[in-house]
Amino acid sequence: MTPARFTLDSSTPSLWRVTFHNPPINLIDSVMIGELGELFADIEKNQGPAVLVFDSADPDYFLAHYDITAANRSLVDALPPGPSGFHPWIDLLVRLSKLPAVTISAIRGRARAAGSEFALATDIRFASRERAVLGQMEVGFGAVAGAGPTSWFPRLVGRGRAFEILLGGEDFGGALAERYGYVNRAIPDDEFENFVDRFARRVATFDRQALADIKQFVNNVSRPPDEEFPPQMDAFWQAVARPALQARATKAFEDGLQQRSDVELCLGEYVGQFGELKKKD
Amino acid sequence: MTPARFTLDSSTPSLWRVTFHNPPINLIDSVMIGELGELFADIEKNQGPAVLVFDSADPDYFLAHYDITAANRSLVDALPPGPSGFHPWIDLLVRLSKLPAVTISAIRGRARAAGSEFALATDIRFASRERAVLGQMEVGFGAVAGAGPTSWFPRLVGRGRAFEILLGGEDFGGALAERYGYVNRAIPDDEFENFVDRFARRVATFDRQALADIKQFVNNVSRPPDEEFPPQMDAFWQAVARPALQARATKAFEDGLQQRSDVELCLGEYVGQFGELKKKD
Amino acid sequence: MTPARFTLDSSTPSLWRVTFHNPPINLIDSVMIGELGELFADIEKNQGPAVLVFDSADPDYFLAHYDITAANRSLVDALPPGPSGFHPWIDLLVRLSKLPAVTISAIRGRARAAGSEFALATDIRFASRERAVLGQMEVGFGAVAGAGPTSWFPRLVGRGRAFEILLGGEDFGGALAERYGYVNRAIPDDEFENFVDRFARRVATFDRQALADIKQFVNNVSRPPDEEFPPQMDAFWQAVARPALQARATKAFEDGLQQRSDVELCLGEYVGQFGELKKKD
Repeated sequence: MTPARFTLDSSTPSLWRVTFHNPPINLIDSVMIGELGELFADIEKNQGPAVLVFDSADPDYFLAHYDITAANRSLVDALPPGPSGFHPWIDLLVRLSKLPAVTISAIRGRARAAGSEFALATDIRFASRERAVLGQMEVGFGAVAGAGPTSWFPRLVGRGRAFEILLGGEDFGGALAERYGYVNRAIPDDEFENFVDRFARRVATFDRQALADIKQFVNNVSRPPDEEFPPQMDAFWQAVARPALQARATKAFEDGLQQRSDVELCLGEYVGQFGELKKKD
Repeated sequence: MTPARFTLDSSTPSLWRVTFHNPPINLIDSVMIGELGELFADIEKNQGPAVLVFDSADPDYFLAHYDITAANRSLVDALPPGPSGFHPWIDLLVRLSKLPAVTISAIRGRARAAGSEFALATDIRFASRERAVLGQMEVGFGAVAGAGPTSWFPRLVGRGRAFEILLGGEDFGGALAERYGYVNRAIPDDEFENFVDRFARRVATFDRQALADIKQFVNNVSRPPDEEFPPQMDAFWQAVARPALQARATKAFEDGLQQRSDVELCLGEYVGQFGELKKKD
Repeated sequence: MTPARFTLDSSTPSLWRVTFHNPPINLIDSVMIGELGELFADIEKNQGPAVLVFDSADPDYFLAHYDITAANRSLVDALPPGPSGFHPWIDLLVRLSKLPAVTISAIRGRARAAGSEFALATDIRFASRERAVLGQMEVGFGAVAGAGPTSWFPRLVGRGRAFEILLGGEDFGGALAERYGYVNRAIPDDEFENFVDRFARRVATFDRQALADIKQFVNNVSRPPDEEFPPQMDAFWQAVARPALQARATKAFEDGLQQRSDVELCLGEYVGQFGELKKKD
């Protein structure tokens, strides 16, 4: 197949590169989920690379977020069930975290909400210091993140910073994301591609069994148990059904959500403007 | 009730502020524990704010530490038992960590020993870069910290730094506390109030159910089990009963402990002077 | 006994210092394992110091790595079994992590592979900012690290950075090691000895029971369960038996492995040169 939502460079057998390409802002939709699922299925049969790098063709957007239109929701619901039996998006991320390949997110541009969830499920996150923007802004719409961040963050950045990221819903630039441990490192943008390429190529020369052993042992003690994820997704869908969230989403769509707009560029800031604090009468 | 140990600003229903005020140095005593317990009881009934900020009226002391006089110990022992059945101080902190409100410590001045324990039990810790001083100096008196730090720190800052903080008993300024993950961030003091206020107000506009969901899921994987705490408190009281600790405390009281004194300002340094290393004869 | 692989300064009863001295590059061999085992046996009987510092007589090598000659392997296999029944090297590190003394690694020079494993099993790691070099380069030879890093790192530095350290096998200087939490702090080299000495002397004046209580409570929640280690060692020996690893080791010995050589100085870089990426035909 030729995927529609990303290009796949498999010209180097031990090092593959997925470059997201879903204009206008690299939304995650049913097609992307389906295509990534097919790719992962191949890799799960140990027919894939030692190292799999994810990057983006759009310097402003790594993966903007989930396509939250009702149309996309129906299409995702219609996808064939994945091996785990979980919702297709959770199924994909659980499988991503277990792939028999080293997975690296090369984050330039925005990776918010489900885009951040994707990055969290990869093994290693490198970020452009100047161009990366990460965050979990779901709370600003009125929802808990649905596919893992409440499981990943406390283990990755500690409870205090996990709460700040998830309850605050703000944007994190590369430097702050590095300081918090949200990403491994923030690399100056003009060195970013070389840095990631050098690291990925190095690891791709290493013994496959050694890489698999390391991944297995580290997963044994650091992967959240699968069963933590579905209740989060349930809480997310319950939030989506609340009228207040629907009202915020409607307004955001009017203001430019899911378009190449200021709203999307500064979505962390935008979601802080829905509400207003009231003094007591 | 009008609390005696802090002021409560509840003029904004979704954002309350507790400002500690217990001169001369904001000691934690039986009255403060009782009053905070009453406040938490209201919030536990979901009659409270979305966000609860703790700060201090004294720029030198957030919460100095526990009042370790025998008089206060008797008064604490006479408090009505809390819902958990634990010692009142542990009961208070366990409840704090589970409150159905986002809790933020805005730390300016000293937060040592029980003052640090209080901050650890809140969700988010912001510190003044220049004015915050955190530490667990109990070891210098000859005691393990009694209400949680041995549970919180390894999960928050990793085992190596947990050991350094707890075994070294030194003072940590804002910048180092941030580097270790002891606090979320250290903010320049002249921006500190605005930073905390802006963050707290933002979160206070968010959907209550979303905030509660996030807190619940993060607590599920990052709150130490309640049963870890009581043995720590038992070990603390055993230490207090040791004559060597009593001798150090007596000397410290003579030198200015629990007064507005150099001893209290530099307590981390002070406790390093009790002992002396002896060479072999 | 007078140890052959290190000097022991026990002139201050509460603060002992082990200074590794095994020219040419402080390899870990059967003699060192045996001698450290005897030392730990004394300390386990509570006949030791409050604080035990490990440093090196060689400013370029803290502990280079394990002596991987077949001769040494036979000698290690011939050591009397340790109390845990595990392989002698795991046995030693498990006991190190449980010692009734505060253990501090003062890392100046290289601490790679088993040298890094040793440091990870101590309570606190201080590093010379300019002279420390840490890393787990086993992956470059084709092996998973055998004695704990896949257990220690995810809990110490988070999953993402654990993967980077273990899958990348690169050298980490003092500053980066500090940023990742691999070490507690990186201290400018000209202040390094004073810093470590001041900290160690301070802790050595503190109450023994308080130190033991802290160590016990922190160990309760942060020490990997013993049973995690043996499967890692099994996977390591399986890797050692693979012909590709043997070929890399043979080449490395020819190039200067285990000698005072450029290969050892820059071993992290060196192991990245074994392989080559091939494009598809």
